Amino acid sequence: MAEVNRQFLLAARPQGMVKESDFQYHEAPVPEPDDGQVLIRTRYISLDPSMRGQMENRADYVAPLEIGDVMRAGAVGEVVRSRHPGIAEGTLVTGALGMQDYALSDGRQPPLRRFPADVDPTQALGVLGNTGMTAYFGLLELGRPRFGDTMVVSGAAGATGSIAGQIARIHGCRVIGIAGSAEKCRWLTDELRFDAAIDYRSDDVGAALDTHCPDGIDIYFDNVGGDILDLCLERIATSARVVVCGGISRYNATGPLPGPKNYFNLVFRRARMEGFIVLDYAPRFDEATRQMRAWIEAGRLTQQATVVDGFAELPRALIRLFEGFNTGKLMVRND
Amino acid sequence: MAEVNRQFLLAARPQGMVKESDFQYHEAPVPEPDDGQVLIRTRYISLDPSMRGQMENRADYVAPLEIGDVMRAGAVGEVVRSRHPGIAEGTLVTGALGMQDYALSDGRQPPLRRFPADVDPTQALGVLGNTGMTAYFGLLELGRPRFGDTMVVSGAAGATGSIAGQIARIHGCRVIGIAGSAEKCRWLTDELRFDAAIDYRSDDVGAALDTHCPDGIDIYFDNVGGDILDLCLERIATSARVVVCGGISRYNATGPLPGPKNYFNLVFRRARMEGFIVLDYAPRFDEATRQMRAWIEAGRLTQQATVVDGFAELPRALIRLFEGFNTGKLMVRND
Repeated sequence: MAEVNRQFLLAARPQGMVKESDFQYHEAPVPEPDDGQVLIRTRYISLDPSMRGQMENRADYVAPLEIGDVMRAGAVGEVVRSRHPGIAEGTLVTGALGMQDYALSDGRQPPLRRFPADVDPTQALGVLGNTGMTAYFGLLELGRPRFGDTMVVSGAAGATGSIAGQIARIHGCRVIGIAGSAEKCRWLTDELRFDAAIDYRSDDVGAALDTHCPDGIDIYFDNVGGDILDLCLERIATSARVVVCGGISRYNATGPLPGPKNYFNLVFRRARMEGFIVLDYAPRFDEATRQMRAWIEAGRLTQQATVVDGFAELPRALIRLFEGFNTGKLMVRND
Repeated sequence: MAEVNRQFLLAARPQGMVKESDFQYHEAPVPEPDDGQVLIRTRYISLDPSMRGQMENRADYVAPLEIGDVMRAGAVGEVVRSRHPGIAEGTLVTGALGMQDYALSDGRQPPLRRFPADVDPTQALGVLGNTGMTAYFGLLELGRPRFGDTMVVSGAAGATGSIAGQIARIHGCRVIGIAGSAEKCRWLTDELRFDAAIDYRSDDVGAALDTHCPDGIDIYFDNVGGDILDLCLERIATSARVVVCGGISRYNATGPLPGPKNYFNLVFRRARMEGFIVLDYAPRFDEATRQMRAWIEAGRLTQQATVVDGFAELPRALIRLFEGFNTGKLMVRND
């Protein structure tokens, strides 16, 4: 066991785009579990768009993060020491373990999810983790896919969008993904078998939506906000569901941003725009995980992970997430 | 029976605020009903914010209105001649009869609603008409009031808002109305027994909402859009329902308008923003009408009408609607 617990602390509230100087590298002693606690060694640490808002305490549904705190991050790890009667050493767990080598938990604080030993840890963090759960519950509970629906997903090559699109296909939807490069678009259509993909950096998104959604958009699964949200609102079909999952175009902005000017189309189309927090569905994560594993085994659902090697890469990896670097789930493999 | 059928035709698509010159007065012969048709004499003609969008064909869920067409308007009238086997002369009916003295219908085109002879015609056009139905279905189907909810309604002294607020009170909500004068606010609290009222022309709406909604807004019934929508979105409670009923602040605008910049609070509050078209609920209008009449008889629901006298006043009355002239339902009594 290592002698130190490497950590990245929150050094500064980001102004605009996240910078490496917003993080401070730190070495702490490896903590000792109290009675009832386990010590976890993190194996893969997740990079997620929502981390940007947490650095500013923008979302108030999670505990605030103060300067000097260990940077919050989802991670998958292994219980290396247990003083908890119900959690054996060697157990694979996920939770908000933070940007660090070692974390303590009593199973509830932070909450841990346990996975069978045969689960691939990158899947536990991705398709079976919070981003996969976000796709599953956002699509099924809010998007309510029906056979034959046209579903558009933005951030389609990201961890959540790529899973949401595949689940929509499983439910018989025509799926159009919007992503940020020709290569990502090829991946969506060739590997994930999306019906079409639109490269927002080079295509005319509105014209492409017109081509691919001649009868309008029944479900828009929004991970980006901004202009693309407006272009989709303009094209929603009657009784459409707009699932507000994320708004990555907004997260690094400074100052107030415009809202969706086409929101009033919700009236003309008798449509709904709805947000959600995946943790509200935590009691149903096991049910979703069983379903997702069954789809994976049947070859109907696949995860791609972009894995960056080395703990030291964590701050840069988060910055690159916002630059659109990753295809599928982005994570850092701890060394 | 008069020799002529007075009409107002659409003379021009309005630019900005509706003007009298957007209408053209016209005299046509009184039409003759064909076999299967009835001839209706209009008694009260309704002025509604949605008429502005129809003058531009902005809403595509109704048939387009062309220059030279009789201006579309809801009205209540009496069947003065019938060649329809199922509709007797003397029947009280409502429908999109237009800005004219006489209209023809076969009962379906335009669709007619029939009312018992004991119904007050101004109620048939208001609380039991489209604006009342809009309040009823918008609130109950989309707003889903629960006992103890805090409900904010804008355009609260208007035809729809004043009914929506009262129905919310009947369902045990605390109701805060936003209206455009001290007199309207007094009417809301003293006559309609709203829990509070905010005068958006003189109060600090955000601060007043903070005072009256310390636990946030569970239902926001929006008739206005614009800044007030944003102030309410900022203050929605967890699982809030934002009912997008109207956007009167938008209807006379020229050029594109900003959207609700606080829409992303839908995510943080797991909330929903939804639009609807009341005509989708037409098969249930009779059910709603029975319920509304029972509330009226029990003294729990009341309608105020602002009645302007004289057919010639129709264009000016519509303009005054947008100036906030009316309290409750605005209509012109035909002479």
